[in-house]
Amino acid sequence: MTSPSPEHSLDLRAVAAAVAGRVEAAMRVDLEAALAGCDPLLAEVVHYSLFSGGKRIRPLLTVLSSRCCGRDDNDLYLLATAFEYLHVATLLHDDVIDRADQRRGRATVVIRFGLTAAILAGDWLHARSMYLIGRLAGPRGLSTFCAATLSMANGEFVQLRLAGDPNTREQQYFEVIRQKTGNLIASTCALGALFAGADEGRVQALSTYGDLIGAAFQVVDDLLDFQGDPGNTGKKAGNDFVEGKITLPLLKTLERASDADRRLIEELLTADRTAPASYQRVVALIERYDGFAIAAAVAKNLVDRALAALAPFTSPEQEESSVQLLRNLALYILSRNT
Amino acid sequence: MTSPSPEHSLDLRAVAAAVAGRVEAAMRVDLEAALAGCDPLLAEVVHYSLFSGGKRIRPLLTVLSSRCCGRDDNDLYLLATAFEYLHVATLLHDDVIDRADQRRGRATVVIRFGLTAAILAGDWLHARSMYLIGRLAGPRGLSTFCAATLSMANGEFVQLRLAGDPNTREQQYFEVIRQKTGNLIASTCALGALFAGADEGRVQALSTYGDLIGAAFQVVDDLLDFQGDPGNTGKKAGNDFVEGKITLPLLKTLERASDADRRLIEELLTADRTAPASYQRVVALIERYDGFAIAAAVAKNLVDRALAALAPFTSPEQEESSVQLLRNLALYILSRNT
Repeated sequence: MTSPSPEHSLDLRAVAAAVAGRVEAAMRVDLEAALAGCDPLLAEVVHYSLFSGGKRIRPLLTVLSSRCCGRDDNDLYLLATAFEYLHVATLLHDDVIDRADQRRGRATVVIRFGLTAAILAGDWLHARSMYLIGRLAGPRGLSTFCAATLSMANGEFVQLRLAGDPNTREQQYFEVIRQKTGNLIASTCALGALFAGADEGRVQALSTYGDLIGAAFQVVDDLLDFQGDPGNTGKKAGNDFVEGKITLPLLKTLERASDADRRLIEELLTADRTAPASYQRVVALIERYDGFAIAAAVAKNLVDRALAALAPFTSPEQEESSVQLLRNLALYILSRNT
Repeated sequence: MTSPSPEHSLDLRAVAAAVAGRVEAAMRVDLEAALAGCDPLLAEVVHYSLFSGGKRIRPLLTVLSSRCCGRDDNDLYLLATAFEYLHVATLLHDDVIDRADQRRGRATVVIRFGLTAAILAGDWLHARSMYLIGRLAGPRGLSTFCAATLSMANGEFVQLRLAGDPNTREQQYFEVIRQKTGNLIASTCALGALFAGADEGRVQALSTYGDLIGAAFQVVDDLLDFQGDPGNTGKKAGNDFVEGKITLPLLKTLERASDADRRLIEELLTADRTAPASYQRVVALIERYDGFAIAAAVAKNLVDRALAALAPFTSPEQEESSVQLLRNLALYILSRNT
């Protein structure tokens, strides 16, 4: 595996910005129709939540997947919009659940417009995403999309159950990741391929790619929770530990720690997790057992496998550049710091 | 219009119970598949919320509508299940919004399992309902269903905006009813007809019937909020007034009241609405201006129009008994006390 050349990174950035622009244009047209005659507050909340500087990664994956299977037309950007609607619907409900007050540097909807608005605007966006998928992606697309949304809700329940449990196993950690993130990212890619009428091999290849980069993304996210610069990530370090989320660096440490250190970690997990000293001790223990380096190696391995999954797309066709962008996107995950 | 004979009432009750039994059986089969491998808490919350003595009115409407268009097979009960899923998803989120502690004589999900479980199980049921509709109702069915769910969320926003506003007009009241209830009830009937492959005339007739009985149901509900026996309804009288909901009896009173009485009502609406004396004074004013009787007459008129909408089904076919049951159901709305 090689690092992306600066030229390729530049391509990805430029293409991502161009795709985001077209997705946002499609979104505005769709919202104008969908919100016609609706309550002004609903319209305000929907716009506030959708246009707040999101990176539009999910729509980008749908667009690139469809492009590298040979289709790129206006409806593609509307299809991609559905994934952004669903994503934002999830964020709205997550912020209610987590009582979050800030998102992307602004007040969350629940803080600014209240609980009722946050829950109902989330339901509205959820329904609208299903409508678009049903209209554009066919029965199989809708079924894949619904399975991914069902899986997200289930993943939250599994995570809730595992919170603070030092007996969490790595397999359970990856199960939560797959349920919460992987299945949805896989479906963004699979639906792009299905939309383009790709053969089964390509649909599966892109679905596997999505599943693996989704997992890699989450592992890196969990690393950034420990090691990220709050100035870049916009989040305080150590959130996961405070919430009792046992992520890969800690899991790898628990696996390798001496009995005494393992007991110490278990004590730190069951005591007051908000104490800064507890967090510092856990970080020191993870460093002692190379937990961060091992988790980073796992992320790299997931990305390598995602790149390998793109093998059916190696022919130098006109779609080649979109495949290369998917490769760059996978590599970018390893280098991101926000 | 005549009252239903005791025989017909008996029929409706017996058929409703039989249909509810088949819908619940379909639900259990579907849940076994959908929840396979899911978190046990998710499964528990979903079962707790679905099997709590609901009357299954929405599925009944779908089943009767399809039957009177000539189709009655196993898939029909699965299609009908989707409406119960959506209904319960809405109740779960409503109970979070209203901070309700009791539903159907038991603790609400939000009280018993917490906010996270209530929001996420609602999302899960919402997604599953879309999945079933997409699979069984075709693109037009999904589109109708999604439009109804979008409309429900919008109706809540409109209601929120109108709360406590004595300048609410009757047209706005009916707009909220249509958005929150009518469109969904219309879609339960329309999807039954679409599922049976009915012609456009019958789809429209059943949709209109559903819209009108949905409105009648809500008007009667609003009357029961003032006049119902808490022993029957399970709710304390006067909730709507306390919440600032200006419903038809009060609207009709505001329309007919002297300037002085109108000002008095406006004062009662803007002062502390939780004071029992305020509620008693509002009830007395509504009685003075016949607000209850006038609202009851409006409900009767809506039911008459719903019965008239069923005109395309007058031929003495084998479907006649299902049409008669739809008629009885409409008439039952006027006599219900729970």
